[in-house]
Amino acid sequence: MLTVGLIGYGYWGPNLARVFSELPDVSLHTLCDRSFERQRLARSRFHRLSTCTNPDELFRNPDIDAVLIATPVSTHAQLATQALKAGKHVYVEKPMSMRPEDAEHLTALAKRQRRILMVGHTFLYSPPVRKIKQMIDQQTLGRIYYINCSRVNLGLFQPDVSVFYDLAPHDISMILYWLNADPLWVCAEGASFVRKKILEVGFATMGFPRGVVAHLHVSWLAPSKLRQTTVVGSKRMILYDDTSNNEKVKLFDQGVVRNPETFGEFQLTYRSGDVLSPHIDASEPLRNQAKAFVEAIESGRPPISDARFGGRVVRVLDAIEASSRQNGKRRWLR
Amino acid sequence: MLTVGLIGYGYWGPNLARVFSELPDVSLHTLCDRSFERQRLARSRFHRLSTCTNPDELFRNPDIDAVLIATPVSTHAQLATQALKAGKHVYVEKPMSMRPEDAEHLTALAKRQRRILMVGHTFLYSPPVRKIKQMIDQQTLGRIYYINCSRVNLGLFQPDVSVFYDLAPHDISMILYWLNADPLWVCAEGASFVRKKILEVGFATMGFPRGVVAHLHVSWLAPSKLRQTTVVGSKRMILYDDTSNNEKVKLFDQGVVRNPETFGEFQLTYRSGDVLSPHIDASEPLRNQAKAFVEAIESGRPPISDARFGGRVVRVLDAIEASSRQNGKRRWLR
Amino acid sequence: MLTVGLIGYGYWGPNLARVFSELPDVSLHTLCDRSFERQRLARSRFHRLSTCTNPDELFRNPDIDAVLIATPVSTHAQLATQALKAGKHVYVEKPMSMRPEDAEHLTALAKRQRRILMVGHTFLYSPPVRKIKQMIDQQTLGRIYYINCSRVNLGLFQPDVSVFYDLAPHDISMILYWLNADPLWVCAEGASFVRKKILEVGFATMGFPRGVVAHLHVSWLAPSKLRQTTVVGSKRMILYDDTSNNEKVKLFDQGVVRNPETFGEFQLTYRSGDVLSPHIDASEPLRNQAKAFVEAIESGRPPISDARFGGRVVRVLDAIEASSRQNGKRRWLR
Amino acid sequence: MLTVGLIGYGYWGPNLARVFSELPDVSLHTLCDRSFERQRLARSRFHRLSTCTNPDELFRNPDIDAVLIATPVSTHAQLATQALKAGKHVYVEKPMSMRPEDAEHLTALAKRQRRILMVGHTFLYSPPVRKIKQMIDQQTLGRIYYINCSRVNLGLFQPDVSVFYDLAPHDISMILYWLNADPLWVCAEGASFVRKKILEVGFATMGFPRGVVAHLHVSWLAPSKLRQTTVVGSKRMILYDDTSNNEKVKLFDQGVVRNPETFGEFQLTYRSGDVLSPHIDASEPLRNQAKAFVEAIESGRPPISDARFGGRVVRVLDAIEASSRQNGKRRWLR
Repeated sequence: MLTVGLIGYGYWGPNLARVFSELPDVSLHTLCDRSFERQRLARSRFHRLSTCTNPDELFRNPDIDAVLIATPVSTHAQLATQALKAGKHVYVEKPMSMRPEDAEHLTALAKRQRRILMVGHTFLYSPPVRKIKQMIDQQTLGRIYYINCSRVNLGLFQPDVSVFYDLAPHDISMILYWLNADPLWVCAEGASFVRKKILEVGFATMGFPRGVVAHLHVSWLAPSKLRQTTVVGSKRMILYDDTSNNEKVKLFDQGVVRNPETFGEFQLTYRSGDVLSPHIDASEPLRNQAKAFVEAIESGRPPISDARFGGRVVRVLDAIEASSRQNGKRRWLR
Repeated sequence: MLTVGLIGYGYWGPNLARVFSELPDVSLHTLCDRSFERQRLARSRFHRLSTCTNPDELFRNPDIDAVLIATPVSTHAQLATQALKAGKHVYVEKPMSMRPEDAEHLTALAKRQRRILMVGHTFLYSPPVRKIKQMIDQQTLGRIYYINCSRVNLGLFQPDVSVFYDLAPHDISMILYWLNADPLWVCAEGASFVRKKILEVGFATMGFPRGVVAHLHVSWLAPSKLRQTTVVGSKRMILYDDTSNNEKVKLFDQGVVRNPETFGEFQLTYRSGDVLSPHIDASEPLRNQAKAFVEAIESGRPPISDARFGGRVVRVLDAIEASSRQNGKRRWLR
Repeated sequence: MLTVGLIGYGYWGPNLARVFSELPDVSLHTLCDRSFERQRLARSRFHRLSTCTNPDELFRNPDIDAVLIATPVSTHAQLATQALKAGKHVYVEKPMSMRPEDAEHLTALAKRQRRILMVGHTFLYSPPVRKIKQMIDQQTLGRIYYINCSRVNLGLFQPDVSVFYDLAPHDISMILYWLNADPLWVCAEGASFVRKKILEVGFATMGFPRGVVAHLHVSWLAPSKLRQTTVVGSKRMILYDDTSNNEKVKLFDQGVVRNPETFGEFQLTYRSGDVLSPHIDASEPLRNQAKAFVEAIESGRPPISDARFGGRVVRVLDAIEASSRQNGKRRWLR
Repeated sequence: MLTVGLIGYGYWGPNLARVFSELPDVSLHTLCDRSFERQRLARSRFHRLSTCTNPDELFRNPDIDAVLIATPVSTHAQLATQALKAGKHVYVEKPMSMRPEDAEHLTALAKRQRRILMVGHTFLYSPPVRKIKQMIDQQTLGRIYYINCSRVNLGLFQPDVSVFYDLAPHDISMILYWLNADPLWVCAEGASFVRKKILEVGFATMGFPRGVVAHLHVSWLAPSKLRQTTVVGSKRMILYDDTSNNEKVKLFDQGVVRNPETFGEFQLTYRSGDVLSPHIDASEPLRNQAKAFVEAIESGRPPISDARFGGRVVRVLDAIEASSRQNGKRRWLR
């Protein structure tokens, strides 16, 4: 039986509470939130739940094995540090931290403390994203050319972080996972309209080894929800629409064919083919992710979205923000 | 009766031939194309059509009032110059020229010669684009925040120009028309995968006066056809999907509302509302455009997509290409 | 505080339990189900819930004000009768009974006992269905011509009732509600393929006063989920797609116009117009319905889906089944 | 070189004229239409076309090998009879005749005259319909259970025939072709709202050998265009949407599985699977059909939609109309 404590019961915390409380062999023990009202709400939903206002209570409690952190991004690094130092396993929401240095310190700390530090990159536990990973690894698409992502809708404006920190971690985590590589450079542009200081709309381009390019568009200001990702390869192409009910992933068996024998302008022909929507299992990503955290603790083997992976995402985010503050200047990642 | 000659009967020329030949009071007189086979094909479709190989024949013919140019982009400037010098009215396909200087010379030349020089920015004559223009001008959207365009599919690779020159003129012309303004700066990234020298995928961001931002994504390498434009304003938002059969334009009566009375983080609320797909007349954009050319000649008043407008588009294209060759560096337009 | 008991915790019961337990001023007191395992499951979800195997316990308990019945259709009439005789208010799932006579007896009994008897025609409490009712009543559509409904997918085969009894109550209740009338006649055809005795696919046509026609197609055997209803009127038409995320109701401002001045064949012209998707509030139909039950008990005023309404639906269902057993012979309702 | 004459240049005739005139080895020689204006219009589009007002001219002309008939349905039988008697091959639009007896006489006459008599059931020459036929014949779907067709939109009201005669021939021809069988019985209901005498909305059910059922819904009064056909088999299911641009045919690898080992109620399980949209060639059905007519004449072998096939469709139509006039009474086809 794994005993967990949760810090933060705002917009996202209730989802973690629900998912972890429904897992067998997991006991949701204590909730920590500054608001008494939120504490009361949580107690009404989960009986025998203790609540507290100060996270130290949680860290000091020897009955608690693991801590889940669902607080504003700017507090992630400090809370995770304290939890690890107190000997707890830690699940922290994405992005892991604001600054790459903090992510590195946390990664090192978790290693020293021999504790699991997992970052909530939920899409890595989502069936369609896994299906696409499998198709890429099996060379179904051929050589990957480029990836294009749109993640927009009339969305919740974050008070402390830009739309890049809010929405792009999803796409960056998928791209790093699929390509198994980090970008060499990024360039990004952002804009804000309703409020003045925090970017509300963003565009970023990333260059990967061997000429692979990825682009992402994130926005809190769009008329309808779009969660669309295109993966284009030399043999086949994928359209992944996370808002579709039945056909989230479509594999297009078509492409451009080079005709090596002919010369001149028209040496390219087009190959049309079938479109396949593979059956995708309907398991809930958040639940899969919670199970992965428990399994990682039990086995001692890090999950896919471990501290190191979370840190790679933070590095990319940091470079994107930096580029967007410099008129879209290309930023090289060392 | 307006007598016209057409230069170029490749991919696009036949469409011009069809549309102009069907207009009352227009006579399609001579076709000029290098290929005898294309000449023969044209004669079989349009009876009493003369054909020739050398455009000079066309320019010298005093019976011909106007010349339509549907040749590769790199030849536009020279052919249009010759036609204007020969005293013809000229319709030239978009983009008007490769270089902004050529566009300026042509504009000046047309003025001196007192001839109509029109550029084939067909979307300016398309009912949905006009409907959106009307809604923007009537302040239906409120203040414009940003515009985002995707124009992608497994498309015809051009032999001589990049995907920016091939596809972006459509989006740029719409944006300049709607905003009635030129970008202050652009930055762009492009990539090629199948062939090495010509950009096949491109992303560009443009900054306009008063903080308005526009972004475009063009690609010859995408699994399915996308012609999607989002216009976001302070009051309402528009989704324009040119591939939709029935509901090309959707007006979303929703947005973000600033609550001036409250303080602190959560002063924003969301307003949900109706979605309206206005009835759009079904007239053919190409035919509307051809009629606009004839009317401009008859009235002596320049069409919307006159030489000056075409030149503005070329200037933006030129800056996009330049930025894409400089790692996405922001290029300011003087 | 209203104290309720629930009979049946199979496929649907858990939804009623959840919705009623979340209402303020309602206490879910006792659950009755034959299966100990289902009882245990219910207790783990709702603390302080009593459970029992025999519904008599529930009926005899003076603390219980109202009984919710979510058992197989064939048991509805008897359980509702017992509950009413025990002085309870009753909410029973649709259809209210197998036979029209039972529905009549129940209606009379509820009246004698001065108790609320409500039938779970949830769609009558669904925002899109209400919106359409409002538009019909305000003459937005003009005179109603016909209604066509499809409700199909690879669905749960019922063990005791046909696909008509399982799926058609939804459509019939909407149609009776919208038209505020009963059919004069019905004719129906059904078929079964996987099992032999119970209809799995059905088609029914209904004739209403003033020539209005309604048709419905129900099926447990269809490749993809369809919940589509068309309402055609003399002025406007509605498409209601309950599977759509954003635009469940579309109002088409188009129709056929009789031209009274002309004679001969071509006196009809078509009017094209805008398409409007009105904003529909996002409240949960099941929760709205539960609130309506509580309000009916408190106010003593019957809900829309009262016993009489439920009985009208049963009469139509009974006629449909009868017609389908007689090769689709038209059955007149007295 | 096959020389053809065309009778009727109203709504549909121009399509036949275009397609036949574009075929190599076919010469469109004479057009017959009562209206001088339509004759003039035809001459302006097709040079060297003769025109006449009386079809006898066409029949008497020994240069004309074949006659295409695109006139109102009520005139089909007589014109086809005259053409066959004059020794011409005949292509007649669907339905071939109003009455089954006329279809039989025509079939016998064509045989006696040793001439090709082809009916314009264009869907039999449409790539998606052929693809589905191929999948059915290869047992991809398993045993066919049922077929459901919707063919509706705000459509052209016919002056002389009901919506059944106007739209149902398409669906009936597809169903007979796919199942390779005739219905044993039909029952149908129709209604009219705008005009009083001619059915504008219709529903028909057809029973085929081995329990296969087909249903069709046709309407001139629907808010949006629907061309949807569902074919459900024991192993797989097909959705055919003729209005889709890219994925007209979808094959669902799912179904209901009987579990022979278990007893009791829940012996059925559901199998979910991939969805495949096979690549469908983009050839034009009307052109394929015209080619089939030419090939049939050249080879002497009847086309798929020969006189006998056309007669089978007329028999079904006739029974549908008869049932709809008798309150939906089931009509058995001998």
